[in-house]
This record gives sequence, structure tokens and C-alpha cells, in this order.
Amino acid sequence: MLDFNPVDFIIAKRDGRALTPEQIRALVAAYTRGDVPDYQMSAFLMAAFLRGMNDEEAFALTDAMLHSGVVLDLSDLPGVKVDKHSTGGVGDKVSLILAPLVAACGVPVPMISGRGLGHSGGTLDKLEAIPGFRTDLSIADYRRLLAELGVVMIGQTAEIAPADRKLYALRDVTGTVEFVPFIAASIMSKKLAEGIDALVLDVKCGRGAFMKTEADARRLAETLVGIGEQFGKRTVALLTDMETPLGGGIGNWPETAEAIRCLHGEDVPDVMEVTYALAGEMLCLGGAAATPQEGVARAKDALASGRALDKFIALVEAQGGDASVVRDPARRPGAEPVAEVRAPADATGFVAGLDALALGWTAVAMGAGRRRKEDAVDPTAGITLNKKPGDPVQPGDVLARLHTRKTDDLPAFRDAVARAFTFSETPPKTASRLLDRYADGRWANP
Amino acid sequence: MLDFNPVDFIIAKRDGRALTPEQIRALVAAYTRGDVPDYQMSAFLMAAFLRGMNDEEAFALTDAMLHSGVVLDLSDLPGVKVDKHSTGGVGDKVSLILAPLVAACGVPVPMISGRGLGHSGGTLDKLEAIPGFRTDLSIADYRRLLAELGVVMIGQTAEIAPADRKLYALRDVTGTVEFVPFIAASIMSKKLAEGIDALVLDVKCGRGAFMKTEADARRLAETLVGIGEQFGKRTVALLTDMETPLGGGIGNWPETAEAIRCLHGEDVPDVMEVTYALAGEMLCLGGAAATPQEGVARAKDALASGRALDKFIALVEAQGGDASVVRDPARRPGAEPVAEVRAPADATGFVAGLDALALGWTAVAMGAGRRRKEDAVDPTAGITLNKKPGDPVQPGDVLARLHTRKTDDLPAFRDAVARAFTFSETPPKTASRLLDRYADGRWANP
Repeated sequence: MLDFNPVDFIIAKRDGRALTPEQIRALVAAYTRGDVPDYQMSAFLMAAFLRGMNDEEAFALTDAMLHSGVVLDLSDLPGVKVDKHSTGGVGDKVSLILAPLVAACGVPVPMISGRGLGHSGGTLDKLEAIPGFRTDLSIADYRRLLAELGVVMIGQTAEIAPADRKLYALRDVTGTVEFVPFIAASIMSKKLAEGIDALVLDVKCGRGAFMKTEADARRLAETLVGIGEQFGKRTVALLTDMETPLGGGIGNWPETAEAIRCLHGEDVPDVMEVTYALAGEMLCLGGAAATPQEGVARAKDALASGRALDKFIALVEAQGGDASVVRDPARRPGAEPVAEVRAPADATGFVAGLDALALGWTAVAMGAGRRRKEDAVDPTAGITLNKKPGDPVQPGDVLARLHTRKTDDLPAFRDAVARAFTFSETPPKTASRLLDRYADGRWANP
Repeated sequence: MLDFNPVDFIIAKRDGRALTPEQIRALVAAYTRGDVPDYQMSAFLMAAFLRGMNDEEAFALTDAMLHSGVVLDLSDLPGVKVDKHSTGGVGDKVSLILAPLVAACGVPVPMISGRGLGHSGGTLDKLEAIPGFRTDLSIADYRRLLAELGVVMIGQTAEIAPADRKLYALRDVTGTVEFVPFIAASIMSKKLAEGIDALVLDVKCGRGAFMKTEADARRLAETLVGIGEQFGKRTVALLTDMETPLGGGIGNWPETAEAIRCLHGEDVPDVMEVTYALAGEMLCLGGAAATPQEGVARAKDALASGRALDKFIALVEAQGGDASVVRDPARRPGAEPVAEVRAPADATGFVAGLDALALGWTAVAMGAGRRRKEDAVDPTAGITLNKKPGDPVQPGDVLARLHTRKTDDLPAFRDAVARAFTFSETPPKTASRLLDRYADGRWANP
């Protein structure tokens, strides 16, 4: 029996009153146990969505979700464990470069990632595009690899934050997804359960992000950092631009291949700008650099020396993957493009814009993502961009190459990709991806 | 398979957009069929509660709920069928006098009523306090009695507005009850399904009503009348005061006995003021009077002549009840009071106020109402007031008599009833119960 009536909490929130931390905890715990039915929780979620939640409520919600499952304790392992989380974008393969890079600099990275969601890819799906790579390791293997390699990359296990899984599924079907306290609690409950000491957040904003406006993205960053700090974890957020795709690969193997090429030393400017900035923060938080700037310099050294690539190869081998495709990504079978998209007759001058959201959804349609949870992804499906905003272009130039098994739909894919490009006579202004930085309660340009 | 995604409708309402009538109808129909789960409907209900619904949406909601079940057609029976609905109060036994009174004047009254809800009694429970009285007649019997007697009083059958039953149960447990469009759609969908031609509404406001403020009650009256008129039914609303209980009986038999005494000619001023005003409106709508005022005069004649009592006796006999207790209510066994509540030592002067809500809940606790749907009511439990606001009072005077089988709790009941009274040295202003009248799109004092 419940010692509270869920209707009282629903009505309180409906009428704009704040719940106490104890009430939030009792509600989430009872919902996770199945003692509060979905139809009451969804009314509560909608009331909270429309009436708002204060910082104390968001913190209590995170805490309740965090403690709905196992909270890992890695304090017996040496080093300051630092993870990174991105709020999701198109072409965001940064984690695959960043995790081995930071680990190669001596800061342990225990990374628990998710799968693709909507138009946005997921790190697990990208890792699994490496033949044999396993992300479903046990908690015991997670601890062992972290101790041995200083880096491990797995998926959320059933033990971690079960309330988040249940609430996320309910939010998805009740129109209560896009609410900062819910998004923040979902992210932070999982990250805090990993056993980390510090966290760097890549909060994306723009057309290809979940937060379309800078104002929403800033509010999310502030809430995430606030929650992290309240749990005693040093937390820094970078606000980065997601108007256009990051890098040239979109889709699982196209992105993984690009990340591997970056680890080999290829300079993809926007990808490496974001990667180094995040690495600098992580190394600083992890005690391997005095400042983020010093951290960036150390990260650049580690990449140039090949130590980051070596760390990634060791990780791939430890998690069952075929390291030969990391040594030479061209060796992976099935990755050849099946079509090209060429610039139209009126495309003279420069690529002005590139619609990240449209390209993300097109890649999903090509097989790179899921329409429903139970769908399988095609690891090699996706888009490789040959032209990016700022690049000069002439009619007939190859804009992009398409990878898909759904060859019947190629005309539609080709058309969708072509329409994502806009052109201009003069070169567009190219700006940094790094928009702002939030830490210690204030915004300051990085 | 649905040809729409319920999440789209939830998000539209969440973001403050109006749904089309077709969308509302599709949603309610799918929910009634079980194709939209409770957890999505409850999110929609909360979004509508907080974002509002316009008149067109409230009309479409009513229409969808009305057509979720059988809509009776009584057009083959002669006369303009008129019903009355009260939004519920404490001591409101008006229907028991009104229905036979109006029928005695030649206007058919097909009345489908409900049971007690919260602190407020229900007509069905009051009728069933007459030994043997059956309210669960079939639709065929309903038609036959209406044709033979010009009046019938039954409960909602399973065929009528099943969407309302399902939605009401969900609203009750999701904090979405007190929302004018939902309340109006629930009332009107059931009333419109009865086969009526016109409707008079008694919209109560004050402490003992569901609408505590006059502003809320006026908004509900306007919505109810607007919906009725949109369905082509002449609809009139009276706004009446429910700060203090109506009449002296509270609880099923205490109220029924008082209604019977009124039919015998006893003048309970507030009860008869409201009853005559409603009867005047019904007779005018039913074509038996040119004006409500003329209708009031005809109703007074019908009561004084004994024709209203005769009609009620015929109704009770036709519906299986023991008419001997209608001929002499003192004959009903088990109705004797078990305790008295007396005025305290400092009660000199006049009864100033009487808390209808507190008395309503006390009567429920004494056995007159239900805490949960499946509870049985004690037909004779309740309170008989001996003093009403405006009455002179001296210490030791009997204020009220209590009827209950829960004699262990008598001290608590006595205390609760005593605390519902307030006293003053000077007589309080006594005002009419009739606050206002809404018809033809405007308010005008009756």
C-alpha cells in the first residue's frame, strides 16, 4: 500500500505548487515498483511539463531515478574518472576519438552510452559498426577494462537507472519529452550511476540538435551542470553549434570510419575543434592538465604521437572488435557508396548551408537509424559528405556519396540530400563550433 | 489500427493549439474502443485542463461522448420532454418534488439521475431510500412509464454515454475533474442521450457546491447552456446559492422524507423557492406556461391540489416502491434519530452560518455516502437540522438530530455538526437562493 495518494501530487503540480524532495522520491520509487500506474504518472508528467519544476525538484527527480538502480562505485580504481555526454546531433562521432584520446593522456574514461534516437545517431551503434565489437559487457568486465586500459565503452545495463527507462518510454508516447528538467534528470541519473568523478557535457543547439534554440540549450546546460555540482561532481558544459552536420560522415560506419581516420591524424577541422575542446576540459578535470588550454595541447600531442589510436585499437580488441578495420578503415567490407549526389546546374560559388536535421532523417531512412525501438540498424548505411559549408562548388561536383541497401529508394534519398544543400555566390561566414562554456555558475567563452 | 498518432493530439493541446472537432471525435472514439490507452488519454486530459478548450472543442467532446452509446429517441411520445439537472449540493432533494410536480402539470419528465458523489448526495440513492424503489429499469420500461405516467426516474444504463463513464473514472484518479469543459461535456452527454427536448440546469455555487466561486459557476452555466443550444435543445440555467444546506434533511431518507413532506404541503421555504423556480422554467419550456412566472403559479396550484403528491405515489408504485411511506413518511422503520446536537452555552441570538460542505462530509461519514464507488450507503443515515441560518437560538436548543448506525463515532459526529454552526447576536441577512438566470446568451435576474 502507498502511504500517499498520487492524485494529491498530481493536483499539487497541476496547480503550480512545488513538490518536496521526499514527495518526488516517493512518487518515482512507487512508479518504478509498479505501485503508481502509467496513467497517473503521465498526468503528473504533463502537469510538470506545463507548470514547470524548480531546481530542487529537478535534483530530487534525478536522485530518485539514480537510486532506482545500481550506483557503481569506482573509487577503488586509481585516477579521477571523467566522462563526456553529448545531447545528440548529426554526424557527432566525437566520443569515438575522445574516449581513447583522454585515456591515452592518463585520465580514466568510463563511458556508458546510448543508441540512436530519432534523427540523431548513438555511440553504441557506431561502435558496433566495427565487426565483432561488443557493447553489452557485464559490470565486472566494465570495471576490469577500465582498470586495465583506462577506458571502456558499453551500453546501459538493466541495473542502471531502471526508472529512467520506464519514464523515458512513457514520456515518448505522452508528448512529454522536450522538457529541460526531464531531459536533465534522464541524462544525469545515468551518468551519475556510472561511478564518475567529473563530467563534461557537449550541449548542442541548432537545427540538427534536440534543443533548436540557443536559449533552450543554455537552460539545459545550466540545469545539467547544476545537478552535477549538487551531486558533488565537477561538471562543465560546452555549448556547441549543430546547425550543420559535424564532419563528413553521417550514419554508423561512415562516422566510425571518419573517427578512425581522425585518430590516424586526418584533420577534419570541425570534428577536431570540438574533440580537442572537450578533451582539454576532461584532462583539466581529471588532473592531467592545469587548464583546459593545457589539456588541449596535451591531447594534440597524444593524437599526433599515435597513442590515442593505439588506445582505441587496444579497446576494440578488448571488446571483441576487429582491429584490422581500425588499422585500415578501407578494409571494412560493404562500406562502398552506391550513388553520388552532384551539384545542380545553378550551384556556382560556395556551399552556404547544409540542413543537419534533414540529413539525419535521410540517413535514418537509408537504414542508419530506427523508426521503432525494435528495428535493427544497417551498420554501413549513411551519407559521406564531399562538400561542406564554405567549400567552393561547381555544377556537377560530387556533393555527397550514399551508402544504403535500399537501392529502390535511391532517387528519393538523392533528392533529399541534394535539397539539404544551399549555395551562395560569396563564401559564407565560417564560425567556430564552440559557442560558449558554462562552469562554476557562469558563462564564459572558451 | 489508428489512422492518427495520439501523441500528435497530446502535443497540439500541450502547446495550446485547438483540436478540430474531427480530431476530438476520433480521439474519444478510439479511447472508448480501447485503442488509445489510459496513459495517453490522461496526458491529454491534463494538457487540456491546463491549456483550455474552446467552445467548439467542448461541443465536439460532448458530441463524441454522447454518440459513444445509445441516444434515445422519444419523439414518438407526445409532449415536450423536459428534464432538470443539478450540479450537486448538500440537502438538494429538489428533483424528488420537481419531477412529479412538473409531470402533474402535463409536461413529461424523463429523468436519468446519478448517485452520490463526494460530499454531495444523489437522486438515485434518495429514491432507493423508499423501500422497494427500483432505479435500474430497462430502456423499454423507461419509455413505457414515461408514456403512462409522464414521469420516470432511473439511473444511467450501460448503453448511455459509455465514454463518459470511462473518462470520468480516469479524471477521478488523474486530478482532472474540476475543469468546466469536462464537467459540462459529462453532464450534457448524458442528458442529451435521454431523448429530452429541453433542459433546465440548477448550477449551484458556494461552499457546499463543486463550483465554489460564483465566477466558476457562471462559466459552467454558460458552457452548459451553450452546448445545449448547439444541440438544438432549449436550455436555461438558474444560478443558486449552496453556501448552506438546502432544507433541513441531509442524507438519503432524511432528504426523501423532507421532499415527501413538501409534496404533502409543508413549506420548507428555501427548498420550495428553488423547486418552484425550476418548475416554472420547465413548464414554460414544456409549453404548459407562457412565462416562467406563470409556470410557478401553475406549479403552486398543482402542489396545493395534491396532484403532485398523487403523481409521486403513482411513480413510486410503478417503480416498485412502498407507497405507504410516501403517504406517511413517519411510517418508515429505522429512521429515528439516535442523538441530538444542542446549542452551546455561548450560542445566544441567531444561527448565522452553517457549513454545507462540513455537514455533507459528516453525513457521508455517518453512512449516507460512499468513500469508494463499491461502498453501500445506509439509506436512513444523515442529519435533520432543527435550526437554520436566521433562526433564533438559545443555549441548549436542539440544533440537529443525527441518524446513524455508527454509534461508536457519535461524539465525533456530534462535534462535527456543532462546529458547522456559527452564531451571531443580530439576525443574519437572509437572501434568496436564486442568484441569477442564464438563457438566450444572457444573464438576467429571475
